[in-house]
Amino acid sequence: MDYGKKFQDAIDALHREGRYRVFADLKRQRGNYPHAYHVDTHGASDITVWCSNDYLGMSQHPVVTNAMHEAIDLVGAGSGGTRNISGTTHYHVELEAELADLHGKPAALLFTSAFVANDATLSTIQQLIPGIVLFSDEKNHASMIAGIRHGGGMKHIWRHNDITDLEAQLAQYPKETPKLIAFESVYSMDGHIAPISAICDLAEKYGAMTYLDEVHAVGLYGPRGGGIAERDGVMNRVDIINGTLAKGFGVMGGYIAASRVICDAIRSYAAGFIFTTSLAPAIAAGALASIRHLKSSKVEREHMHERSATLKRRLADEGFPVMENPSHIVPVMVGDPVHCKAVTDALLNHYGVYVQPINYPTVPRGTERIRLTPGPTHTDAHMDHLVASLRELWQRCPVAKGEYVRLAAE
Amino acid sequence: MDYGKKFQDAIDALHREGRYRVFADLKRQRGNYPHAYHVDTHGASDITVWCSNDYLGMSQHPVVTNAMHEAIDLVGAGSGGTRNISGTTHYHVELEAELADLHGKPAALLFTSAFVANDATLSTIQQLIPGIVLFSDEKNHASMIAGIRHGGGMKHIWRHNDITDLEAQLAQYPKETPKLIAFESVYSMDGHIAPISAICDLAEKYGAMTYLDEVHAVGLYGPRGGGIAERDGVMNRVDIINGTLAKGFGVMGGYIAASRVICDAIRSYAAGFIFTTSLAPAIAAGALASIRHLKSSKVEREHMHERSATLKRRLADEGFPVMENPSHIVPVMVGDPVHCKAVTDALLNHYGVYVQPINYPTVPRGTERIRLTPGPTHTDAHMDHLVASLRELWQRCPVAKGEYVRLAAE
Repeated sequence: MDYGKKFQDAIDALHREGRYRVFADLKRQRGNYPHAYHVDTHGASDITVWCSNDYLGMSQHPVVTNAMHEAIDLVGAGSGGTRNISGTTHYHVELEAELADLHGKPAALLFTSAFVANDATLSTIQQLIPGIVLFSDEKNHASMIAGIRHGGGMKHIWRHNDITDLEAQLAQYPKETPKLIAFESVYSMDGHIAPISAICDLAEKYGAMTYLDEVHAVGLYGPRGGGIAERDGVMNRVDIINGTLAKGFGVMGGYIAASRVICDAIRSYAAGFIFTTSLAPAIAAGALASIRHLKSSKVEREHMHERSATLKRRLADEGFPVMENPSHIVPVMVGDPVHCKAVTDALLNHYGVYVQPINYPTVPRGTERIRLTPGPTHTDAHMDHLVASLRELWQRCPVAKGEYVRLAAE
Repeated sequence: MDYGKKFQDAIDALHREGRYRVFADLKRQRGNYPHAYHVDTHGASDITVWCSNDYLGMSQHPVVTNAMHEAIDLVGAGSGGTRNISGTTHYHVELEAELADLHGKPAALLFTSAFVANDATLSTIQQLIPGIVLFSDEKNHASMIAGIRHGGGMKHIWRHNDITDLEAQLAQYPKETPKLIAFESVYSMDGHIAPISAICDLAEKYGAMTYLDEVHAVGLYGPRGGGIAERDGVMNRVDIINGTLAKGFGVMGGYIAASRVICDAIRSYAAGFIFTTSLAPAIAAGALASIRHLKSSKVEREHMHERSATLKRRLADEGFPVMENPSHIVPVMVGDPVHCKAVTDALLNHYGVYVQPINYPTVPRGTERIRLTPGPTHTDAHMDHLVASLRELWQRCPVAKGEYVRLAAE
């Protein structure tokens, strides 16, 4: 049995489709973000990062890095255990209390990532409530799809952000059938925002629980950075809120916030929570400091939103195919994986602009795109250079499938 | 629909079985490990940790904590992205090269945890090699079980460490059927060690791939800390080695080491790898320093093994029911979840000895136990106190199901 060949065949398929991924090897320059060094065989070159989910630059904030330094000095590196077996530190306890407060919930539960939080929670709920039917927005993130699938229960996919379709699907079941509606607030690749309140109305009408993924919104929206549900005043209507510590908050890890009994049940039954080493104390300490800071400081998110609006306007003014949306995400459509990679390779190698191509399976085939994430540290000068670079590339290589030119070969 | 009641019912079941888990809230004292503070409603009390998987105390080693400090100073807190979208830093690249070298493999791949590494890799292999049959040791960790189950393929469970049973199961299939044998080197709760070489003989005979989880062995066994496969000189015979950065290496995160094409295929297809923020740079930097240190320094593991052997001998001399095994793990059998928790509560509250009770689902019902993990920082005085405390408790409360006395009520 030639196992190597089977793995090689899978790789070859990616090359054929032009969506084989090459990771850019980066070294940030703290205090000088969004600048970073890009390391390749030619050495290290200075680049500007335009595709990070460190939306507010909190990974560079002294309040965060100082908290991490302090935790390392006080307690060391790793936690040394699962949450149950010696791995619950006081940082974890404080962080869970802070997250509960952020979302106006009685409790919260930490996971090693928001992917694991979604996977573990959504699969375990199906185990704890046999017969529960899940209603999942068609654009839900891979981690929710994983959790829904791993639970093994009945599921329905509803059309993206379409509450008419959602209602039609909910109405197929008697009210006493247990149900859960799973959706996101900000959809990361399109930048759409869900009608949370209308979805909660349907949840009430049809007796469903609600599960909301706010990973691209926490820290960024709402008076205290509680996300879109906070902004819309509907946090209390959502049963389970999922969030990340790795994007707006700039560190790593994920969580859910919910009622005490829900968190306790997930804590007690979810394999992905139970059987894994807890977050390093310094990670928890850094996230704690970041959340506390962003609860009272609005300057980072206001500045980020201004930068995003400015970039959208500038790109639209120049006729770039910017996908319209009501969030901070700036997608520029390309529509072909090979072309998308050629454009971003040229941006990186000739213009010092780092934007990763977004190809399948992150987005559907044919909707390949460049996804820009302007933040508070992107200056007007950074933006001038980005727009000029894109203009030059677009002039030489009109972005349309039929007109693909292999820029990477230049 | 009263969803709260459904979750509460699940919690109540745990209380009835006496296996509801209460997490001990700890704060280590760096430089003074295994001492820590235990925080509860009465305040903070000084305790000695006897159940950590920070087996070598590397979480406290200056080479590790200094590397973390330096990385935070140089690049900040979080990576800000998935590995593909701006989240590959030079620390990740260097760490993967170091791990590949540690295991004598051409490549390695980082995950946010070893749980995710097992889950993602074992499920994705089934996707990439349709029809592959998995042969799983019955004592395999929950994360391997998750990955095997999530792949959705055919699986067989073989009797723990029983190569006769494994062979009987392999022999049911033609040689050309793709197969994978999944097992651990050190089984964490019993301390058994797998006959890796004999399993590899069978793999060759029947044309199977081998997948070895070394999470409780890396850093601890082998001339360079490469694990049991390194100690036994059989690393080159194992196709995929899974390990953790959170136990022997004292930080957090997990990985696989394998051929270049296997790592590339998993990297390219595993949702649990692709769609999650990469490890924080400081975590990667700390792990890198730890691995490099333990490749050349044997003193930590030699001291740990001496401490473990000494504790086993002392407990056996006093007639405690220590489960015999050839590894560093020291399990003391109790056999009842309520009793197990009562003993460990008394140890914590009256003797300042912190050992978490190990109950179902971590071990099978009826085999509840205390699991001690002596390390290089546990002195003879710590051991005297532990043995004296256990002796006192055992005298007042003989460990046998029929003779249970509720010590916690004292």
